[in-house]
Parts: sequence; C-alpha cells; structure tokens
Amino acid sequence: MQHRKEKKKKKSPILSQLSEKIGDAPGQCRFVGERKIDEPAIRVFQYDASEFREINENDPEKLPQVLRQESVTWIDVSGLHDKNLIEKICTRFFIHPLVIEDILETSHRPKMDEYDDYLFVILRIIGYDDQKDEIVNEQLSLILGDGFVLSFVERPNPRFLQLVERLKNPKYRIRKEQSDYLAYALMDATIDDYFSTLEILGEKIETLQEELLSDPQPDMLEQIHTFKSRMIELRRAVWPLRETIGKLERSESELIRPTTLPYFRDLYDNVIQVMDVIENYRDILAGMLDTFLSSVSNRMNEVMQRLTVIATLFIPLTFIVGVYGMNFEWMPELKLKWGYPAVWVLMIVITLVQLRYFRKKGWF
Amino acid sequence: MQHRKEKKKKKSPILSQLSEKIGDAPGQCRFVGERKIDEPAIRVFQYDASEFREINENDPEKLPQVLRQESVTWIDVSGLHDKNLIEKICTRFFIHPLVIEDILETSHRPKMDEYDDYLFVILRIIGYDDQKDEIVNEQLSLILGDGFVLSFVERPNPRFLQLVERLKNPKYRIRKEQSDYLAYALMDATIDDYFSTLEILGEKIETLQEELLSDPQPDMLEQIHTFKSRMIELRRAVWPLRETIGKLERSESELIRPTTLPYFRDLYDNVIQVMDVIENYRDILAGMLDTFLSSVSNRMNEVMQRLTVIATLFIPLTFIVGVYGMNFEWMPELKLKWGYPAVWVLMIVITLVQLRYFRKKGWF
Amino acid sequence: MQHRKEKKKKKSPILSQLSEKIGDAPGQCRFVGERKIDEPAIRVFQYDASEFREINENDPEKLPQVLRQESVTWIDVSGLHDKNLIEKICTRFFIHPLVIEDILETSHRPKMDEYDDYLFVILRIIGYDDQKDEIVNEQLSLILGDGFVLSFVERPNPRFLQLVERLKNPKYRIRKEQSDYLAYALMDATIDDYFSTLEILGEKIETLQEELLSDPQPDMLEQIHTFKSRMIELRRAVWPLRETIGKLERSESELIRPTTLPYFRDLYDNVIQVMDVIENYRDILAGMLDTFLSSVSNRMNEVMQRLTVIATLFIPLTFIVGVYGMNFEWMPELKLKWGYPAVWVLMIVITLVQLRYFRKKGWF
Amino acid sequence: MQHRKEKKKKKSPILSQLSEKIGDAPGQCRFVGERKIDEPAIRVFQYDASEFREINENDPEKLPQVLRQESVTWIDVSGLHDKNLIEKICTRFFIHPLVIEDILETSHRPKMDEYDDYLFVILRIIGYDDQKDEIVNEQLSLILGDGFVLSFVERPNPRFLQLVERLKNPKYRIRKEQSDYLAYALMDATIDDYFSTLEILGEKIETLQEELLSDPQPDMLEQIHTFKSRMIELRRAVWPLRETIGKLERSESELIRPTTLPYFRDLYDNVIQVMDVIENYRDILAGMLDTFLSSVSNRMNEVMQRLTVIATLFIPLTFIVGVYGMNFEWMPELKLKWGYPAVWVLMIVITLVQLRYFRKKGWF
Amino acid sequence: MQHRKEKKKKKSPILSQLSEKIGDAPGQCRFVGERKIDEPAIRVFQYDASEFREINENDPEKLPQVLRQESVTWIDVSGLHDKNLIEKICTRFFIHPLVIEDILETSHRPKMDEYDDYLFVILRIIGYDDQKDEIVNEQLSLILGDGFVLSFVERPNPRFLQLVERLKNPKYRIRKEQSDYLAYALMDATIDDYFSTLEILGEKIETLQEELLSDPQPDMLEQIHTFKSRMIELRRAVWPLRETIGKLERSESELIRPTTLPYFRDLYDNVIQVMDVIENYRDILAGMLDTFLSSVSNRMNEVMQRLTVIATLFIPLTFIVGVYGMNFEWMPELKLKWGYPAVWVLMIVITLVQLRYFRKKGWF
Repeated sequence: MQHRKEKKKKKSPILSQLSEKIGDAPGQCRFVGERKIDEPAIRVFQYDASEFREINENDPEKLPQVLRQESVTWIDVSGLHDKNLIEKICTRFFIHPLVIEDILETSHRPKMDEYDDYLFVILRIIGYDDQKDEIVNEQLSLILGDGFVLSFVERPNPRFLQLVERLKNPKYRIRKEQSDYLAYALMDATIDDYFSTLEILGEKIETLQEELLSDPQPDMLEQIHTFKSRMIELRRAVWPLRETIGKLERSESELIRPTTLPYFRDLYDNVIQVMDVIENYRDILAGMLDTFLSSVSNRMNEVMQRLTVIATLFIPLTFIVGVYGMNFEWMPELKLKWGYPAVWVLMIVITLVQLRYFRKKGWF
Repeated sequence: MQHRKEKKKKKSPILSQLSEKIGDAPGQCRFVGERKIDEPAIRVFQYDASEFREINENDPEKLPQVLRQESVTWIDVSGLHDKNLIEKICTRFFIHPLVIEDILETSHRPKMDEYDDYLFVILRIIGYDDQKDEIVNEQLSLILGDGFVLSFVERPNPRFLQLVERLKNPKYRIRKEQSDYLAYALMDATIDDYFSTLEILGEKIETLQEELLSDPQPDMLEQIHTFKSRMIELRRAVWPLRETIGKLERSESELIRPTTLPYFRDLYDNVIQVMDVIENYRDILAGMLDTFLSSVSNRMNEVMQRLTVIATLFIPLTFIVGVYGMNFEWMPELKLKWGYPAVWVLMIVITLVQLRYFRKKGWF
Repeated sequence: MQHRKEKKKKKSPILSQLSEKIGDAPGQCRFVGERKIDEPAIRVFQYDASEFREINENDPEKLPQVLRQESVTWIDVSGLHDKNLIEKICTRFFIHPLVIEDILETSHRPKMDEYDDYLFVILRIIGYDDQKDEIVNEQLSLILGDGFVLSFVERPNPRFLQLVERLKNPKYRIRKEQSDYLAYALMDATIDDYFSTLEILGEKIETLQEELLSDPQPDMLEQIHTFKSRMIELRRAVWPLRETIGKLERSESELIRPTTLPYFRDLYDNVIQVMDVIENYRDILAGMLDTFLSSVSNRMNEVMQRLTVIATLFIPLTFIVGVYGMNFEWMPELKLKWGYPAVWVLMIVITLVQLRYFRKKGWF
Repeated sequence: MQHRKEKKKKKSPILSQLSEKIGDAPGQCRFVGERKIDEPAIRVFQYDASEFREINENDPEKLPQVLRQESVTWIDVSGLHDKNLIEKICTRFFIHPLVIEDILETSHRPKMDEYDDYLFVILRIIGYDDQKDEIVNEQLSLILGDGFVLSFVERPNPRFLQLVERLKNPKYRIRKEQSDYLAYALMDATIDDYFSTLEILGEKIETLQEELLSDPQPDMLEQIHTFKSRMIELRRAVWPLRETIGKLERSESELIRPTTLPYFRDLYDNVIQVMDVIENYRDILAGMLDTFLSSVSNRMNEVMQRLTVIATLFIPLTFIVGVYGMNFEWMPELKLKWGYPAVWVLMIVITLVQLRYFRKKGWF
Repeated sequence: MQHRKEKKKKKSPILSQLSEKIGDAPGQCRFVGERKIDEPAIRVFQYDASEFREINENDPEKLPQVLRQESVTWIDVSGLHDKNLIEKICTRFFIHPLVIEDILETSHRPKMDEYDDYLFVILRIIGYDDQKDEIVNEQLSLILGDGFVLSFVERPNPRFLQLVERLKNPKYRIRKEQSDYLAYALMDATIDDYFSTLEILGEKIETLQEELLSDPQPDMLEQIHTFKSRMIELRRAVWPLRETIGKLERSESELIRPTTLPYFRDLYDNVIQVMDVIENYRDILAGMLDTFLSSVSNRMNEVMQRLTVIATLFIPLTFIVGVYGMNFEWMPELKLKWGYPAVWVLMIVITLVQLRYFRKKGWF
C-alpha cells in the first residue's frame, strides 16, 4: 500500500500531517509518516572521560542491560517505521505510551515533557534538499534519562556522525560531562542545521532580490510566495522551540545539572537568533513583494503611457490630412501650388511642439 | 412554529446564535438551537476492568440509581430539544441551573467550569457536511462526576459509537481507568474530528490553489472568501479550547487523577497542532487572495496592452493613407506610377519597425 | 443655553464626550450629557422571599430610612440632569464625591471600583434606535451596598420594567436572593440588550452583504464604513466590560456571596460571546470591503475592456477604407468592377477573424 | 548661538529631541530644549485649611526655609533655560543629579521614579497652537515631597493659574488636603488639556471628513497624514502615562495617603479615556484614507470611462464616412440621389443604438 | 582564506552572520566576524578618587596581577581576530568558555548573563559610515567583575577615548564610583551613539520626505526601502537591549550597588526613547511609502487623462472632415461657396464647447 501511495499524487505536507492524526485510540501506537530508509538501525555508544566504545547490540530487549554506572550511553535509532521495534525499546526503558505515540507520529511541534525518570524532548530537524528544491523537515525525539540518551530520527543524521567523531576524541569537554550535556550536544547540532538551511535560503532570496531589482519577471511572484511559505514553515518549527528550551532551562529536574544550564542558555540565544534571521527574511520578502507589485504596475503604466503618447502625436495630423481630403468645391488652399508642402511643414511643426511639450512634462 | 420558521429564509449561524440569547430570566432553561433529531435518546453504558454492559433505562428520574461504586457509568444524551428531559436528568444529578441553561443553549464557546462535585466542559463538535457543503458545528456538553460522565450532544455522534466498541474490548486501557479517562477519551474523539474536517477543507483549498495558479476565474474570489470565513469559524471553536484544556490540566479537582494528566497534556498538544494547521491555511488563503488579485489585474493589463499595441500599429498607417487622400492640385507623388506601391512599401516597413521595437521591449 | 445648542449643528458623540470633560475642579459634580427626559423619576422597590412592594418616597433625604434589614431595596433613578437630586441621594448613602461625579458624567467606559461599604459599577446601555438609525449608548451606574442597590440611568429602561414584573412573582429565584443577585440581574438585563442590538445590526449587515454580491453600488462603501464604526463603538463599550466583570468575580468583597459567583461567571461568558460576535462582524465587514473594492475595480476594467475591443475592431477597417480613399493616379484596384465588393468582403473577414480571436482569449 | 539656530531651517521635533541627547557625561546637567520665555519665574504658594498666601522669595538658596510644618508649599518654576537656577533649587532640596538632568532635558516620556524622600513625575503638557497650527508639547516635571510640591514647566501654564484661583478659595477640598492632592490636582489640570486638544483636533478631523465625502481634493491626502502623525504624537505622550499613573496608584510610598488613591484612580480612568479617543480618531483617519484613495481612483476611472464612451461612439461613424470616401470607380451607392441622406440616417441610428446600449449598461 | 573571501562578492550582513554560526563544537572558540584592525590593542586604565594612571601591560598572562584593591581597573581590548589573545585574557580571569565564544562571535544580540563572579553584557555599537553610506554595527562585550571591567570591541571606539579623558579629571563623579559605574558609563557612551546615528538617518529621511512631496522620482522607492531596512536593523539591535538593561536593574548581584541603580534606570529610559524614535521613523517611512505610491499612480493617471482629453477633442472633428471627404454625387453642401468656412466654424465651435465642458468638470 505504501507503494501505491507513492504513485498517487503526493499529498501536501500539511495534509499528510493531518491524515496521520485521525482516528486512533489514545495511547495506541502507530507509525505515521513517510518511510524514509529501508531498515531501522540502532547504534549504541558508550563513553566516559577515559573510554569510548560503540556497542553492537541489535536486540532491543537487551538494550537496558548495556547501561553502566559512571558512563554515558547514547542509543541512536534511525528509521521509525518499524513500530514494534520502537515500542519494544521504549517499553524496556519504562517510557510512557503517550511518549511512544509521539515518537512514532513524526509531525509534532517542538516540545518538552517532564516525566518522573526522564525528560522527553521533540525537535524538528531542518535541512534543505537541493535536488528536490524543498525543505527537509523531520522529527528528532530525545529521551534524556539518568546516564543515557535515546534519540529517534527518521533517517541517519550526518550531524550526529560528526558528533560521534567528537566523542571519540578524549580532549573534548563532552567526554567529561553527563547525559544532559550529550542531550545538549544533540540539540546544538540540530539547531546548527537551521543556520545552514537559512544560509542556503538566504542566498537564494538575495539572488532573487537582485534579479528583481534589475529585471522583474512575472514568475518571480510565485518564487517570492514559495520563499514566504518556506519561512513560515521554518518559523513554525522554531517558534515553539524557544519555549521548549526555556522550559528545559527552568526545569527543576535533577537530570539537568547546574553546570549544564549555561549551555542550554546558549542554545536559547541561538534559537532567538534563528528567529531573528527568519523575521528578517520575512521582512525582506514582504519588501520584495511590494517592489515586485509596484514594478509590474509601473512597467505596465509606462508601456501604456508611451503608446498613448504615440497615438496622441498622430491625432492632430490625421485631422489635418482629413481636412484637405474634403471635397468642397471652394477650398482655396487646394489650388495653391505651395499648399501641399505647407501642410507638411505645418504637421512637422505641430509634431515638434508636441514632442517638446511631452518631453518637458517628462511623459516619455 | 418551528415548521414555519423552516419555510422562512434561513437565518445565518451568527444571527440565530444571537436571537437565542435574548430576553430570559437568568437560570431559566429553554432549548435554543435547531432541532436536529426526532426523538432524544438516552444510552447508558457501565464498565469496569472486568465487565461492560449497556443499561436500558429511559426514565430520567431513575438514572442516578444505576450508578455503581467501582464502575464507570457513561450516560449519553442525544437530542436536546426536550427541555424537560434534560432538566429532569440534571436535577437528579444536582447540576446547577446555569449549567443546564448552558447545555440547552447550543451556541457556547468551549469552556470549563469547576463546581464542587463535578466539572462542566463545553466543546464544539466540528465536521464537514459534504451534501450541504458547510461546516457542522454542534455543541458537546460534558459533566464529569465521581464515577460517571454525562454527555449531551445535539444528535448521535458516530465517533462515540466507535468509542463504545472500544469500551467493549477489555484489552483497551480505558477499561482499567476511571471517569476522568472516559471524559478524556470523549474529548479526544471530538478533537480527532477537527483533524478530519481540516483534512477535507485542506484538500479543497489545495485543489483551488492549483486551479488558481493554472487558470484564475472570477468566481474563485468568492470561494477563497468562503474558505477564509470557514477557517475563522474553526478558529473560534478551537482557540478557547486551548485555555479550556489548560484549565483542566492545571485544575486541582480530585476528579482528575495525576495519572490522567499526561493525556490531557497530549490533548493540549493536539489542540495546539489544530490551531497551527488553521493558521497555516489562513496564511495560504491570504497568499491565494494576493495571487488572485494580482493575476486578475495582470490579465486585465495584458489585454489592454495588446489591444493598445494593435491600435498603435495602425495609427501611423492611417495617417499616411490620409495624406494621399488629400485633394491638393499640386501633389507630385500622386502622379508617379510607382507612388501607390511605394506607399505600401513604406507602410509595411513602418509596421515591421514598430513590431520589432515592441518585441524588443517585450510589449507583446 | 441647552436650547440654543440643539439648534446648532449637533456635535459628534466623540466630540461631545470630550467637551464634557474639560475644566472642572476634581470631585466637583456637574451633569455632563444630553438631557433625555423631562423629570427625573425615583422608583423604590423592596422585596424579600415573602413580600414585594413599591415604596412611594420622592424625598431623596428620606431614602436611606426605607432600607430594611432582611429585605432587598432597589432604588432606580431615571434622568440625571438634576445634579442636586443625585448629589442629595448619594450623600445620604455616604457615596464618595468621585463616584457622584462619575454618575453625572455619562460618557464613562465600563468599570468597577471597590469602596469600603459598596461596589460601584458602570455599564453601557446599548440599543438601536430605528427611527434615527443610530446606536443608543447610555450609561448605567450601579451602586451595590449591603441590602440595597442604587441604579442610575439617563432615561427609564424597558428591560428594568420587565425585571420589576419578575420581582413581583415569588416563584423566581431572585426573590430568595440578596442585593448582589439583584445587581447581577440588572447587569444581565443590560447585556441582553447587546445581543438584541447585534442581532438588528447583523441582519442589516447580512442584507447589505447579499446586495453587495448581487449588485454593488457606489454608496455601499459608506454603508460598510458606517457599520464598521458602529462595531468599533460597540467594541469600545464591551471590551472593558470583560475586565469589569472579571474584577467582580475575583473581588473579595463580602457584598458578593460565593453562591452568586457562578452567575457573574455566566455573565462573563456572555460578554466574551458578545465580543466574539462583534469580532466576527468586523471580519465580515472587512471581507465586504475587499469584495466591494475588487468588484468596483473589476466592473470598471470590464467596461474599459469592452470599449477597447470595439475600438480595436474598427481600426484595421478604417485603415483599409483610408487606403482606397487615396488619390494616386495609378491605383489599379480602383478600376476593377469587383474592387468595391472585394473590399467589403475583406473587411468582413478581418472583423470575423478578430472577433473569433477575442472570443477565444475570453476578452468579451 | 541660540540666535543663529533660529535663522537656520528649523529642525523637526524628533531631530531636535535627538540632538539634545548626544554626548554629555551622565549626571551632568545642561538645558536641552527651546528657550520659551525670557526670564524664569519662581512663584511660591503656601496654604492650609485656614490660610493661603503667595510668598515672594526669588533667592533659590532660601527656598527650603519657607517650608512650614502643617502647610502645603507649592513652588512653581516657569522657564528652564537657566540651568544654574534649576540646579541650585534642586540641590537645596537634595534632589538626585539624574532628576535634575531629566528636568532640564525637555523631551522625556512620561514616567514616575520613586526616591527615598520624594517622588519624581514627568508629564507632557499638550496643547494646540492655533496660530502656528501645531501641537504644543512641553514637559512638566513634578517633585512631590513631604509637605511640598516642586513643579517645573517651560513657560507659565494658564491651567496652573486657574488652580491658584481655586487654592485661594477655602471652600475647595484641596485646601484641606496634603501635598499628594496638590500633585494630583496639577496632573489633573494637565490631563484636562488633553481633552481640549483632542476636541480641537477632533473638530478639524470631522470637518475634513465631511468635506472629503462631499468633494475630495488632492491636498486632503496630506491633511489626513498630518492628522495621523499628530495622533501618533499624542499617543506617544499618553501611552506611557497610563503606566506612570498606575505606578503612582500602586506605589507604597508614604507620600501618597490612602484617601488620595481614589483620585489617582480617577486620573487613570481619564488617561484610559484619552487613549480611547485617540484610538478612535486613528480609526476614523484610517477610514478617511481609504475613502480618499477609493474616491480619487473612482473619479479618475469615471473620467476615463466617459471619455472612452465618447471615443467609441464616433469610431463606427468615422469608418462609414471613410467607406464613402473611397475612390472606386464602381461604387453604386455614390450615384444614388438619396445616398448621402441615407448615410446620415444610418449614422444617427447607429449612434442612438449605441447610446441606448451604454445607458442600459450604466456606462454613463 | 580571509583574503580570498574579500575578493569574492561580499556577503550580506545576515548571510555572513549565519555562516559564522555553523558547525563548531560548543564551547570551542573561534573568531567569527570581519577583521577590522591590524593589531589588537590592550589598554589598561586604573583609577580611584585620588589617582588615575594608564598601565602598560601587553602580556595577557600578567593582566590579573595589575588589579588592585580599592581601585577600579578597566581593561579595554580592541580587535578580536587574535583568538589566542582573547582566550588567554579570559582564562586568566576565570571566564566561562561560552562567554569567550560569545565574545569572539561578533553577531550576538544584546544580552546579559549572570555568572557567579561576574556579569557578562553584550551590546551593539551602532554608527553611521558616511563614506560607505551604511550602518556600522559592531559588538561590545563587557565583563563586569569586582573592581574591574573588561571591554572587548572590534576596533578602537572614539567614545571610549572621550571617557578616558573624563576619567583623567578627578572632579567627575565616575572617579568616586566603583566598577559598576564604569560599566554604566561605557554602556551610556555606546547608547549615546544610537542617538547620533538616528539623528543622521533622521535628517536624511526628512530630506527625502520633502523631496518626495515636491517632486517624487521612481528611485525614491528604493531609498525608502533602504531606510526601512536600516530602521529594522537598528530595531533589532535596540529591542533586546531593553530587556538586557531591565535584567541588570533587577539583578540581585552584589556587583551592582543600589546607588548605581538610578543610573541604569536612566539608561533604560534612554533605550525606551531610542525605540520610540525608531518606531516614529518607521511610521514616517510607512507614510512616505503610501505617499510615494499614491503620487506615482496619481501622476500616471493625470498623464493618461490629459492625453485622453486631447484625443477626445479631435475625434468629432475627424469625423466631420471624413463626412465631407465622401464621394457621393449628390452632396449639396460641397457646392456651396461658404461650405468650407462653415465647416471650420462648426469645428471651432465644437472644440470650444468641449473645452468648456472639460474645464467645468475639472478634467484638465
């Protein structure tokens, strides 16, 4: 059925988000979203100040057993379509059914929920897919427990690979920190992507802006609208993040140590800055829309004006030649030898006077 | 009289909502709304972890007697036009007269009022009636008491039938929970409908959007306005719901147990998401309006421009033929054998020059 | 002087409200407003669960003496232009001079002020005067004391007469309640009028909307603007009422008993609903304005387009007849017998081709 | 230098406000503003319930010595350009240097600062200068101490003279009150001016509105914009006043006695009402702008339409006369005796048909 | 690489701000920004009430040793591209790595972070570069510790030099104050620049406004947009400053003594005033945009109207001359001697009648 759906007209992101939500019993888990990779992958990393190792444990039932006092364990699950797998993992860690449901429904707004033994955080992974020319908007679910972090993503995240590299190097601060710092690092890597995405979009917007000023084309209207709706999409992903991280900062959970708080505060500043940039581009796009509309209307008016000037130039001339096309018997001018050249002179004079008047008025 | 009213021009939803409110003594109950089914129906369901049964008790006076310690009793009343019936039921459960009044006036905004022995919640049931092509907007009144839930709807709700099916199956969590969870489940089913309704509207909006981009038609303006006012109507039903559920979450009533709180929090998230989607479609509709207006004006301008180009092409030609229509005696060109063809050549050259100039300027 | 003013151009409501405020010593009372009835009338009603009577006491000095333990006394003063009378009454009840000033200046926003022995509430009485086709916007000042309510209105209020009727009937709840319930009942009757007024305005707006869609006329712009400013006026009367009633609800005054609180909460809901309807009509009016402007511009464009099409049709024809009006000696076509009919045929063909092209393009 | 500046192009109010602020050490006092009177004047009034006297004491050094237990002393300083004088007075009363700086910089927003021994309040004195047709916007600085009030204004305030008259009359409440009531009375007199100013502006706006509806002129656009920016200026003077007086009301300073609080509450109500009127006029002006723009565009369209109708009427006629201007040898109509009158008949018929069609369509 | 980047097309400020943020490990310091001076300079000033001296200490390792009890030490670092230098200084003062990172990334919004031993404040230095005609927007990072202030700027700040001069003079208050007053003085000097920048921009805006009213040119649209986006940039620098200084004022840190609080309150007032002016200019610019658009459209309409009037004048004349160009055999007028002059008279009369009608209608 998944296959047939792909052949059908693709649903818009909002619509598919809606259809995912409908009609289940609460607390009943079902994967809702697009299947993005073939096989879900579980990677387990464990480290403390002295040691880092990747543990090969694919049996979800045994995952809780790899946790070790004094070490931080990071379990990264990529691919969410295998509902049973996710459910098994979460149940072993005593995660609330509603949290599992939230992990499997990949259209959630960023949020932070506090449970007795863990914190549950949802973020949006934002990227830009150059081939498809569209925003990538996926869900990252984080569970921060005592000594471990569970991360659930729809497909393997390259930023997380970079983080793994950093984890291998004992000189980095993260090796000396607890699971709350790991959660912070994952969120930081995710928010870094927002900056990259905004940079790509920003370059495109500024290129479009320059083209718009030099040579406005009708199809630019649609491009401006596309960028506007992308900015709205980004905004919707980032806006609730502010509150989410604010809640983490103010949380009184013991899972977040006071020494990690400055890092979350820094994250908060970054989110504010992302929002700032988004608002900025929205302002720019609104200005571009104004410019576009007024340039189109100016251009049209200018065309009309020039044509009208041409028409007006010829109107008196046509009148004059009409006069001497009349068939009155007594029209003395017609008999004069210099009548014809005189009419030409008259017409040239009239034209020149008109041209001068128009030029003075700045009409062309 | 009800009959005569139907023959009259139907009142708009806002107007009929207003006329319902006028002129009664406070606390005096009267049914205000449209009679939507013939006979009110009372269904009574009772369940605990081990047992589920539907009780056949149509005498409202005896309803309180069916309540049983250790079981949850759900009394679902469909059809509100029989004022006496509703009043009898509520009085037996010691419900405040103002609550009865609110149940009977079916145009209330969502709200939650806390009374000593029960909580009173109003929600809007939102649907989409395909035949009439209009939003269905009915009232659901819930009374959550200790061990029982009273629900009042204007006509039987198919979502509630699904819930009854679920109640019959002992494997579902709801069978192990108390009346607060039942209230949650009813609210969840109601809010699920919002997603379906938004999906239907969303599909229509996105279809319209595509048609608008390919071939804008004058009547689309009205369609866009219709969708806009529907979104406003939905927004008015959902916006106060956020606060309503927030109040339930923060309520210190003993009727809501701490273990049910995460479910209400989940409901809250859903409502936020509904609002998000609504705002999104409002943005899309605003963009569509812009696109429509600018496309209409572009099309009109384009028409005018083409016509003006045609007119301008012929103006100098008409002048030239006018010149040689003059009756001067001395007009040497007229005597020349090649005069006539030369004029044709001249006119063709002028036309080509103009065409080239217009094309270069992109005027057609 | 009052007489002369009426002969002058009537001041706008905002201006007259302003001129009333200027230049007095604070706490100095003066009637500011329009004199609306000839003689001020004082009516005194007293009731308890068993008895209701209207007391005939026109001497303001003796009013406090009619109060009786165990009964609720309602003193209703209609007509505020007799400053001395109002001052005498208020002074006997030990009312603060600023309150007296507020009662006499009839342009106050709704508000609630708490004094040691009484609560002071201002509401706007809103109605619609069909003859003058304008909003009636008068002031109701209520003083809620222990066992009595003083109400001050600019002219006798028909809603209050209905309330008197209800008071006479011992079966109504109000007969068993205290003065706080009476205050509530007076406020409820006042707010009921908002619904009636909105219903009348709403019907007019919706009629206008239908006319607008079927046949837009230039004068509708002014009508839309009139309705818009009326909605703004209503909004200004209702918006602060929300806070006023909220303050009453949260007030810790002993004058308001806990059992009356649900009634004030109900009032609060009604006010919210009034605001909702107002916002709704403001949205509708904004949409109507858009529709009006775009329909006017569409109609104008359409006219221009049709006329331009007609003009364009004739331009090539006029060129052709010009050609054969030239006087060249050698124009072989002129000699041909079928030249003239051939030109007619040519012109008819050109016209048909143009017509077809225009029709295909949808230009007329 | 003051002199030379006046010869230069006058700076806009915003610009001059800016240039005043630049480049001083903090706490260093300098007069910044326009010198509005020649000589600063100090007037000292002292009163209690039994006595009122004006004290002639021009030596700022001795001012604190005139204070008397049991009396209220009001020291009114008009003219602020003599920095030394102001500084001397303030230093004698132990006023903080920053307060002195604020008094001398006359472009402050309304604010209230609480110091240990006194309260410092800034208000804007708003008036309308009919000669210059501009808003007068000056600063009033009040220092409310124990038993005295210092007021600093840029030039003598006529409202204050009225207050002095009132002070002389022992029957007024103010004679029995303390310095807090005097501060209130000064603020009340200042806010009274807002109502007068709004009344003057309101009359002008409403006159303009009527002219606009009857006969819109191009220069009205600028007038509307002028009124808009005046309303914005007023709004900027009043908006922070709300908070200022709110702070006074909530202040726990012992300088404000509980019995004066209702008066400040009344002031607060007045400020709210001023803001209400301002918002109202802003709404009216926005509506006027809409009306203006649409009336201008309607008028232009109407002109174009009438002219186009005239042009269109003649186009077919010109074509017909062109036809019979052709020189074909075989044109039988030309030989017919009734040919010429027939053409006239044809043209008249065509014209009448067109006129009827246009009239039916409502095109003129 | 820095070198190559400068050769490439310069990035827009927003884009370069974005690219700086991407891809580092948190807490890892890197200079991100433009290198603005060749060599970083460290200047150390030390003063108390009796003495002021500049200390020559370029070795960052030894800086903490210059601090002295009872004196205030100000260490001013200009030039931030030497990451190692900044890091060394900060590490010696036990500054948190995140703070160092914030100092080196020069695109931060204003903020205040409280650490155990110091306060960290970021401000924007705003100026106007007349040569490049662009806003200068640099970062000032302040660290306020016990007895010392560290300031980091991208290039030497002339305002700071003025402050050094003031420090040398023992009569100034600052010499008697602690490090919190120094921090205040630095912030005050920075905010003073906002007023200067706004004054320069304001003069340009008001000049443009006058030109716009007298002679609107197409390129003014772009100028208005440029000013608008500059105001947005300023707003983004100032808006968060309000909260930053508010936090300083409310901070319970012991580093800020109660006697300095009034100064921060004064700073707060200044920031509010800056925001006020910015909003004001935004309003003015919005009005200018409206004026521009309506003046352009008016001018175009006026042109079209005049041309149409000319065209219309000639249409009936051309028709008349066409009539007498017809070749009917029986056209008695043609034989009449006075036929030709009569036609001229007729045409002149028609023209005069039309001109009069147009003039009456105000069409030209």
